[in-house]
Amino acid sequence: MNIALLGYGTVGRGVDDIIRNCVPDVCVTRILELPDRLTDPRMTSDYDQIVADPNVELVVECMGGIEPAHTCIARALAAGKHVVTSNKAVVAAHFAEFAELAAKNDVAFLIEAAVAGGIPWIASIEKVRRIDDVHMFWGIMNGTTNYIIDSMRREGLDFDVALGRAQEMGYAERDPSADIDGIDVANKTILSACVAFDVDCVRDLPVSGIRTLSKSDLSQFASRGMVIKLFGRGMCKDGKYAVSVEPMAVTQYSLEAAVPSNFNLVSLEGFTVGRLKFYGQGAGSLPTGNAIVQDVIDAMHGRKQVYDFSRGLTYDPTLLMGDYVFRTNSMPVAADAWAPNMWLVRNYTSEQARALYERVLQKDPTAFMTGLQKEAS
Amino acid sequence: MNIALLGYGTVGRGVDDIIRNCVPDVCVTRILELPDRLTDPRMTSDYDQIVADPNVELVVECMGGIEPAHTCIARALAAGKHVVTSNKAVVAAHFAEFAELAAKNDVAFLIEAAVAGGIPWIASIEKVRRIDDVHMFWGIMNGTTNYIIDSMRREGLDFDVALGRAQEMGYAERDPSADIDGIDVANKTILSACVAFDVDCVRDLPVSGIRTLSKSDLSQFASRGMVIKLFGRGMCKDGKYAVSVEPMAVTQYSLEAAVPSNFNLVSLEGFTVGRLKFYGQGAGSLPTGNAIVQDVIDAMHGRKQVYDFSRGLTYDPTLLMGDYVFRTNSMPVAADAWAPNMWLVRNYTSEQARALYERVLQKDPTAFMTGLQKEAS
Repeated sequence: MNIALLGYGTVGRGVDDIIRNCVPDVCVTRILELPDRLTDPRMTSDYDQIVADPNVELVVECMGGIEPAHTCIARALAAGKHVVTSNKAVVAAHFAEFAELAAKNDVAFLIEAAVAGGIPWIASIEKVRRIDDVHMFWGIMNGTTNYIIDSMRREGLDFDVALGRAQEMGYAERDPSADIDGIDVANKTILSACVAFDVDCVRDLPVSGIRTLSKSDLSQFASRGMVIKLFGRGMCKDGKYAVSVEPMAVTQYSLEAAVPSNFNLVSLEGFTVGRLKFYGQGAGSLPTGNAIVQDVIDAMHGRKQVYDFSRGLTYDPTLLMGDYVFRTNSMPVAADAWAPNMWLVRNYTSEQARALYERVLQKDPTAFMTGLQKEAS
Repeated sequence: MNIALLGYGTVGRGVDDIIRNCVPDVCVTRILELPDRLTDPRMTSDYDQIVADPNVELVVECMGGIEPAHTCIARALAAGKHVVTSNKAVVAAHFAEFAELAAKNDVAFLIEAAVAGGIPWIASIEKVRRIDDVHMFWGIMNGTTNYIIDSMRREGLDFDVALGRAQEMGYAERDPSADIDGIDVANKTILSACVAFDVDCVRDLPVSGIRTLSKSDLSQFASRGMVIKLFGRGMCKDGKYAVSVEPMAVTQYSLEAAVPSNFNLVSLEGFTVGRLKFYGQGAGSLPTGNAIVQDVIDAMHGRKQVYDFSRGLTYDPTLLMGDYVFRTNSMPVAADAWAPNMWLVRNYTSEQARALYERVLQKDPTAFMTGLQKEAS
């Protein structure tokens, strides 16, 4: 099978390497690149050539960003080509459109690499769902923030030092906002919910990150046997669903607490299979490239995941409810004292907690908020 | 697709339930049972009827034990029927024969449920191997022993009390030898090696269990920040491979240390995908039934995993080498004192450690041995 790569950055090169070395039945015949970077005879900057090439059966999109990725994916699907993508942002923004185009044109639209890198997360959810309902998923979906928290916790680094080191290691972008503000996790949570619950997931879910997390916050929770991690979560029950992204304090004895460095750990709960957890590298050239190549092989073998969002679930934030701790010098509502400058509120939905956190941040921009996990996960 | 169940115990009933409720395209039309247990019109005690039934396309073997399971599987494959089994003992004993019969008759032989219950472990190894080499696997593959160790550690129970409770909960058999002596893990390790390394794995690997583990052993290791778990392991390098089963002391910060109750956690390392870990219920009617039904659906969709053991790997125990601690009042070789009554030997292969442990046990039948994990896994 001949395929085209859109983008030849870290991930695109990883895909090219893995296919050349390990997948004799697949050949990268075309690569879309910018006009000033055409260093390989397969490269072109004219996407029309790729769409019009009848020998290209599948397009791998690893450009990132919303446009032109959105247009490129839509045109490839409309032209009857399978699409494999690692671009969580564009899929989170346009999943329903892509799914419909793929079904209409009877081609595959596969997104394994968009969530949790090399971990077979999306394919595992889909496999579980063949015979089971997934009523809950949760976990550590962003390696950058896990690396920052882990370095702060194990080596006592300040947030800015840990972030700087993540940037040096290539784990974080120069502008780290998408990671530390939870936007990256929000996109992955949306995709996970679309796949796990068969719903065109809301985009305006409650999202909080770890930008204001301090060393002393971690120490305060450690003294109570807890570790803070950034979680994406989804819940589905009785025709309703909810999703959220927020820091979560978990017991030190949980698997989540043990996740080191820039690894991911994502979990689901099904009715017959029970609780499953998947751990691995959530990013990087080879793990992400590996996930893309697995999707390419699946597409070659005829896998066409059909996403049908007509089940009509309604969004109900009350499904995600719990206790939250705020660290601030200016708490605007009545709350229990939890520790010096820390306040506990009970039975808040993720949405209510986010709304309160926004009020708190207006007066105290350094305030931090985290959920408290009720039980070991 | 019409299928037959061989055996209608806990797992067989779980499979029947899941198929009836969740898989409209599959129908259980025949069930093999003992003559005095024919309580359902689909049941027969005459296997000839099932083999001769041209409408039965697939046979699910969940009888357990070596015979008649071995004969039943071989006859079904020879008759051109797909076989799905949860029976690790019979597959560990006859994998090469079954694989050859399946290939010759162009049918599927699928064993997901035989290792790690509901965890998609075998399918994940096979998927990784489509584009990657697996050079190492390891993990907690037996829920009974994990439950025992976890109860001893968290609740301070003696071994016998914890075992008794595991028996009450239905996690352990009346004769618990297969679990606590590592035999069950040995079978699962053999199957994992067959699939991960494409080798007809040796059956006489070094196997040690946890029969002599005491509360004070756990305390002694806890005081050094370590937790003992029963591991199955495999390693493959430069045309050689090694496998072993033995207790392993891991750091308290590892994911393995955090595995609670009767859960399993199995890991692999591939070249491009890096380290992956899979966690879930390793046994039980519904998780194991779930794994069987997943294999049934895969077979229906045309998946025919071909096992080719002609790669010709040689068994080389020196690939698995490390440090071991013996707790005994009678150490027969020179060793470093590690703690009261505890002795450290360095750079032993699993085979050498097992041989030494057998010498120790002759004089001190209550002696305990564990490997020391070098680094966080």
